[in-house]
Amino acid sequence: MEAVDLSRIGLAGLAVMGQNLALNIAEKGFPISVYNRSSNKVDDTVERAKDEGNLPLKGFHDPKDFVLSIQKPRAVVILVKAGAPVDQTIATLSNYMEPGDCIVDGGNEWYENTERRAKQVAEKGLLYLGMGVSGGEEGARYGPSLMPGGTREAYNYIEDVVKKVAAQVDDGPCVTYVGEGGAGNFVKMVHNGIEYGDMQLISEAYDVLKCVGGLSNEEIAETFVEWNRGELESFLVEITADIFTVKDDLAEGELVDKILDKTGMKGTGKWTVQQAAELSIAAPTIAASLDSRFLSGLKEEREIAAKIFKEHGLTDVLGSQTVDKKRLIDDVRKALYASKICSYAQGMNLLRAKSAEKSWDLNLGELARIWKGGCIIRAVFLDRIKKAYDRNPKLASLLVDPEFAQEMVDRQSAWRRVVGLAMSMGISTPGMSASLAYFDTYRRGRLPANLVQAQRDYFGAHTYERVDRPGSYHSEWAKLARKSKTTVKAYT
Amino acid sequence: MEAVDLSRIGLAGLAVMGQNLALNIAEKGFPISVYNRSSNKVDDTVERAKDEGNLPLKGFHDPKDFVLSIQKPRAVVILVKAGAPVDQTIATLSNYMEPGDCIVDGGNEWYENTERRAKQVAEKGLLYLGMGVSGGEEGARYGPSLMPGGTREAYNYIEDVVKKVAAQVDDGPCVTYVGEGGAGNFVKMVHNGIEYGDMQLISEAYDVLKCVGGLSNEEIAETFVEWNRGELESFLVEITADIFTVKDDLAEGELVDKILDKTGMKGTGKWTVQQAAELSIAAPTIAASLDSRFLSGLKEEREIAAKIFKEHGLTDVLGSQTVDKKRLIDDVRKALYASKICSYAQGMNLLRAKSAEKSWDLNLGELARIWKGGCIIRAVFLDRIKKAYDRNPKLASLLVDPEFAQEMVDRQSAWRRVVGLAMSMGISTPGMSASLAYFDTYRRGRLPANLVQAQRDYFGAHTYERVDRPGSYHSEWAKLARKSKTTVKAYT
Repeated sequence: MEAVDLSRIGLAGLAVMGQNLALNIAEKGFPISVYNRSSNKVDDTVERAKDEGNLPLKGFHDPKDFVLSIQKPRAVVILVKAGAPVDQTIATLSNYMEPGDCIVDGGNEWYENTERRAKQVAEKGLLYLGMGVSGGEEGARYGPSLMPGGTREAYNYIEDVVKKVAAQVDDGPCVTYVGEGGAGNFVKMVHNGIEYGDMQLISEAYDVLKCVGGLSNEEIAETFVEWNRGELESFLVEITADIFTVKDDLAEGELVDKILDKTGMKGTGKWTVQQAAELSIAAPTIAASLDSRFLSGLKEEREIAAKIFKEHGLTDVLGSQTVDKKRLIDDVRKALYASKICSYAQGMNLLRAKSAEKSWDLNLGELARIWKGGCIIRAVFLDRIKKAYDRNPKLASLLVDPEFAQEMVDRQSAWRRVVGLAMSMGISTPGMSASLAYFDTYRRGRLPANLVQAQRDYFGAHTYERVDRPGSYHSEWAKLARKSKTTVKAYT
Repeated sequence: MEAVDLSRIGLAGLAVMGQNLALNIAEKGFPISVYNRSSNKVDDTVERAKDEGNLPLKGFHDPKDFVLSIQKPRAVVILVKAGAPVDQTIATLSNYMEPGDCIVDGGNEWYENTERRAKQVAEKGLLYLGMGVSGGEEGARYGPSLMPGGTREAYNYIEDVVKKVAAQVDDGPCVTYVGEGGAGNFVKMVHNGIEYGDMQLISEAYDVLKCVGGLSNEEIAETFVEWNRGELESFLVEITADIFTVKDDLAEGELVDKILDKTGMKGTGKWTVQQAAELSIAAPTIAASLDSRFLSGLKEEREIAAKIFKEHGLTDVLGSQTVDKKRLIDDVRKALYASKICSYAQGMNLLRAKSAEKSWDLNLGELARIWKGGCIIRAVFLDRIKKAYDRNPKLASLLVDPEFAQEMVDRQSAWRRVVGLAMSMGISTPGMSASLAYFDTYRRGRLPANLVQAQRDYFGAHTYERVDRPGSYHSEWAKLARKSKTTVKAYT
């Protein structure tokens, strides 16, 4: 094979995401070699490249031929299932790779696996990147948001490619060098956690509009169309509007009503919640969205519970309220937006905590920027987050950025009305109410945590601090209480 | 040394918990040998044993002498800090132990560490137990709740001792053989997670009584005294009543008001939340209590946030409400109790999920029983939980036990009033509102999760199920929406 024939880059793993990303790369003018363990996918991809305009893509059935077809230093993107398949693919390909070559894992991988593999392949002189790819199949084909992390040198090899391949927004391509080690995977994981939160909050908005406001699917679709013109403008709000318009072709009515209320999940939301706990970061909105998925899975159990509580006199929806639809829609929009700010504040603070732990030096504003396009959480709102961090890179929380603080204040009454109304009718809004509790906890100088600390000192001698003088104290509570006890009687 | 002089059992690690447990064992008539790395604690313990009635306790400064002073098969309880100190202690003592001897770790250890160590010492023919010990220093001395897990044979060696040493309640001692491997540690971990929840819920009750109801510390003390005579009767409610009576001896007023509102923690709450996520169990009340501890730690950040929001016109407490104190107190009691049931339902379901994963065959009713005395969460209420599982060992959730279901229904209006009122005044009740959202989610046959699943299918082709026919479906949402799109306009 002549040098002139070598591809700019390689891609292994040709499920839909891999195929689409390969075609995207080829379309941007970068000759690409592709490989897959089962060879029919290779042929499919070659076929598609031909059909979509004779794109510069070559398929290989043999891993050695595949690797040798790429120009040095070689960069090979792998897009296979996270976990063991990644290890297997690396084992196969690295046999033919040479020191200085680079592997780029584009899957939703646990960041520690990336760090382990980076060390493993470094023994062979290979470089390694873990690159979060968001945007689903469409994004992969037409412009995803890319979150590459790992060896800086390796990023330099692929920078020209990923900058062209990524979604393009007003201030550049939706890709940046995230940081060392598993930083790219970690950032993608938190992106997904935030995505869980957004989806949960939207589903609660739907629930309130439907069950409290009595809106029809058509009215809900119209509401989301309208919302997508304002502060909530985003991919998820846009597709939600679409969803409510789709008719069921197997039965009467809209398809959304026929979908079983059981939500699947793949692990990144779970990891986000576990990492938040590990790093002492409160992330209740994201946790509520994960819990809601868990509870949604208990469909049969919930149906039995509903029946039992009905037998005890508690109906699904408690009573009915006469509501002004227009005002409710306006209130729900504000509640959704305010809840969303809380959720993003949690995600951003989780990123910052991990960055400090791992010395990744994550640039939160830049991460908000690369999420502005391509990815599932893309939204106009992310530009405002970017600007908040531009104004103050050390911002303690999005909530206290002057602009966001004002927005929270402007929306908090409506937010309380929505959660309160839903709650009084027995409609749970776990994400919105967790967000509100987060907001009201964070903005309070004095919490009742003094009592918890007193209890801990009472039964475990854990000591406490005082508000009025320095030092650590322990009191013999039981003894002290006995002294004053004769004076206390029950409040009846 | 004559055989007749050998001790029944040994205990290594003589911080306060260890000393107290050793004295407790000795007091129950079991001759005990004690050892500690720093020998002054050994002497202290020997001194205390003398002072507290010439208890049969022998101190050793040398680990070999210590081990050899115990009758075979030897059982040695270790009570040192979880983690590396446990490994070091095992390394030291196992040198002198013989096949068939047994090590009992009484610390708050991560269950997997116990399983790892059990395997390690098995190579030397030693048996191993991980035994949760709850009740603080007082419990250790006068009767703790004990949660031993590991080799059944090892439990048999110590059964007569632990049954005497544990707290005694109406239906027996607060100890049972929990299950294999790390089951004892895991159960203790969940116990602590539940304890976090209880403490958080009590602190929210205090916050509402104080900030919404305007109750004085004296009135709050009286309220908790009264509550401790009814359905809430428990150790934590009892000590809370005590706490509000204690005067500050450094300044005017009650000590509780001078305690800094920053809560410490040691890891078991975090593990509980992480394990719940791992096992797909919703545990929002326990998670809210963990998050509240995290947020309490951000004291300086919260004070700044409070200032910023005040500048934007949002005061700490929003407005004031005229409330009927007696009714509020009654409502808060009901809210606290209902929230508590949700929290225990989460903890029990977490235990059951882990039991299924690890084939531990945990007996949930029996676990509720051994928590009735000795431990921090001891409460009259646990007898009712035990009875619920006696009635139906396969109970899907405490919430659907006929008695608890009725109690929830009887309290839900008051509960909604409390959370709604607090929320309208900007007083966060994260634990109570998470519990309420959990209840209202669990008891609903139909959730808005259909929308989330539609979204996932829209952008990720994750497929969905239908409510009206079997199978797995995927729709081309964007295409289908375009068909109907011309008909949809914004709702304005």
